[in-house]
Amino acid sequence: MSGSITLEQVCNRLKKQDNILILAHQNPDGDTLGSCFALLYALQSMGKHARVECSDPFPLRYQFMFPDYVPEQFTEQYIVAADIADTQLFGKNSEKYIDKVDLCIDHHPSNTFYATETYLVADAAATAEVMMDVIDGLGVSLNLAMATCIYTGISTDTGCFRFSNTTAKTHRAASRVIGLGVDNAEINREMFGRKTQSRIAIEREVYNTMEYHCDNKCAVICMTQEMLQKAGADDSELEGVSAIPCQIEGVEVGVTLREKEGGYKISLRTSRYIDASEICAQFGGGGHARASGCFIKDTLESAKQKVLAVVKKAFAAAQL
Amino acid sequence: MSGSITLEQVCNRLKKQDNILILAHQNPDGDTLGSCFALLYALQSMGKHARVECSDPFPLRYQFMFPDYVPEQFTEQYIVAADIADTQLFGKNSEKYIDKVDLCIDHHPSNTFYATETYLVADAAATAEVMMDVIDGLGVSLNLAMATCIYTGISTDTGCFRFSNTTAKTHRAASRVIGLGVDNAEINREMFGRKTQSRIAIEREVYNTMEYHCDNKCAVICMTQEMLQKAGADDSELEGVSAIPCQIEGVEVGVTLREKEGGYKISLRTSRYIDASEICAQFGGGGHARASGCFIKDTLESAKQKVLAVVKKAFAAAQL
Repeated sequence: MSGSITLEQVCNRLKKQDNILILAHQNPDGDTLGSCFALLYALQSMGKHARVECSDPFPLRYQFMFPDYVPEQFTEQYIVAADIADTQLFGKNSEKYIDKVDLCIDHHPSNTFYATETYLVADAAATAEVMMDVIDGLGVSLNLAMATCIYTGISTDTGCFRFSNTTAKTHRAASRVIGLGVDNAEINREMFGRKTQSRIAIEREVYNTMEYHCDNKCAVICMTQEMLQKAGADDSELEGVSAIPCQIEGVEVGVTLREKEGGYKISLRTSRYIDASEICAQFGGGGHARASGCFIKDTLESAKQKVLAVVKKAFAAAQL
Repeated sequence: MSGSITLEQVCNRLKKQDNILILAHQNPDGDTLGSCFALLYALQSMGKHARVECSDPFPLRYQFMFPDYVPEQFTEQYIVAADIADTQLFGKNSEKYIDKVDLCIDHHPSNTFYATETYLVADAAATAEVMMDVIDGLGVSLNLAMATCIYTGISTDTGCFRFSNTTAKTHRAASRVIGLGVDNAEINREMFGRKTQSRIAIEREVYNTMEYHCDNKCAVICMTQEMLQKAGADDSELEGVSAIPCQIEGVEVGVTLREKEGGYKISLRTSRYIDASEICAQFGGGGHARASGCFIKDTLESAKQKVLAVVKKAFAAAQL
C-alpha cells in the first residue's frame, strides 16, 4: 500500500519498464478492457512486450477491440492494474498478482490504494479517459485501434454519455477519437442498441404483469419460470428488467418478483425517499438504499402481498 | 422556393431583421424546440423582438428550456423555420405561414427548400448544432439558457450521442455547452431515463403487435388510434417507439405503422445496409438513410404488405 503519483511519473515508470502485465478486473466490462488494450497497443508501439490478463474470459461482445489478440508469453517484470478499484475485484485467476501490482491506473473514488503506486483521477468518467492522457504522456500517437478502445471504455462507463460522470472533458475525448475514425455508431449499437428477440418477448410478458399500488407510487412486475420459458429468455437477458418499474414517472418504489426454486426473489428499487434495504431487511435481505433484494418462500400472490404491506408501512412512515 | 445561403448570409439577414417569428415543426421534439428557443434567446439578447410558435402545444417535458416563456406580441416581419424539412410538418395552426417563410435553418438532407432562403447543414447531427454556429455568427455570447437548448436538441436528436449522425463536431459542441454549466445528466434523466405509465402501456400494446419478416431481418410494429386511446398515450409519449423494431438483434429494417387520419404513417429505420429513404421515396416520403418516413393511404394490413413488398425487394437488391 502506497500513495499517489503524477501523470508524469506514470509515464516515466512505463517508459523504463518492459515485459509488462496489464490486469483487467473480473467480470470485465468495456472500460477495464478498453483501458487495458489501449495501453497494450501503446506499449507495443513503443517496442515493448506487454500482455493483458483477466480472471474471466474476455466476453465476445468486446472482442472487436482485440480481434486477433494473441497474448505474448514472457515473465512479467512490471504489473499494471487498470480500472481495478479493490483487491476483491481481481478474481480467482488473478489473485496471485494482488500483492505484486506496481501501478494502478483508475478513476473510482473508492480505490483502496492497494498497489505500490496509484494514479487515480476520481473525476474522470472512465479509466479509458485517464488512459488517453497516459498514452499522450508516453508520446505515443493515438491510432485507430487505441482510439476504439478509449471510446468503448468511455461510452460504456457513461451509459453513452448519459450519466452524471460525463464532463466537458469526456466529450472532448470522444470528439478526438471519433476524429480518428472510430465507428462510434456501430460500437454504441452493439453496446446499447441491441435487444434479442427473447428480451423483447420477456419485456412484453413483464409489461403484461405490471400493477400499480399505493396511489401509483409503487409499481410491481413479475417474472415466472413459465414466462421465461415462453419468451425463450435466459438469465443474461434479464439485465435491467428489475429497473423497469422504478423508471416510471411518479413511482417511488419498484418491485420485481422473480420465481426461483421454492419461492420468489424480490428486487426492490426506490427513486428518492424510501430506503429499499430497510424494506428488504424485514425479509432477511439487504443491499443499498436505492436497490436491495430478498427472498420470500411463498406463492406469487402471497409474496407480493407481504412485500406490499411493508412498502405501504414505509410510505406511511415517510408521510408519502 | 429558392436556394441555399451561407452561414454569413444567414447572420447578415438576421442582424438586419426585427419582429422575427420562429417556427417549430408539429409534434415538436427536443431539437426543433431547442433550436427555436436558442435562437429566440440570442435574438432577444441583441435587443430584437422574437417569438416561437408551434402548431401543437409545447410538451411539458421540454418546458425546462423555457420555464417562464411569455410570447411577445407583434406582427411578424421575418419568419424563420427551424428544423422543419418539409411544408407537411408545419401542422394545422402554422399552415398559414407555409408560403411566407423567409429562412429555413435545418439539418435534414430531405429538406425541400420550400423557404425563400435555406441554410441546410446536412451532416449536422441536429439543427441545434447548426444553431450554435448561427449564434456564434451573430456575435452573441452563448449563455446557459441557450446552451441548455443546444444540448437538449443535440442529445435528443442523437439518442444521447448514440446514433450515426453523432460526429466529432457534435461532441465538441456538447463539450462546449457542458463547460457553460448545462446539467447534462439531469436533462438526460428526464429525456431518456423516465417513462410515463401511458408510455409503458403503449410499449406493451406495441410489443403485442410485433411481427418478424424476411428471415427475422425485418421487424414490424403497429400503433392504432385504439391502442393509443387504451394506453392513454398522446403524441409526445411516442418518441423513440419507432426505433424499437430496429433495435432487435439481427434486424436490418424496422417498420412502424402508425394510424393517422385516412391511413398510416410509416417510420422506417435501418441498421447498416438498406437505404431507408429509398424505400420511403417509393411512397412519396423521404428522410435519412437510416431513418425515413412516408404516408400510405390504406388499411393497416394492406399498407403493411405494400411496405413489406418494397423491403423484400431492397433485401434482394442488397443480396441480404
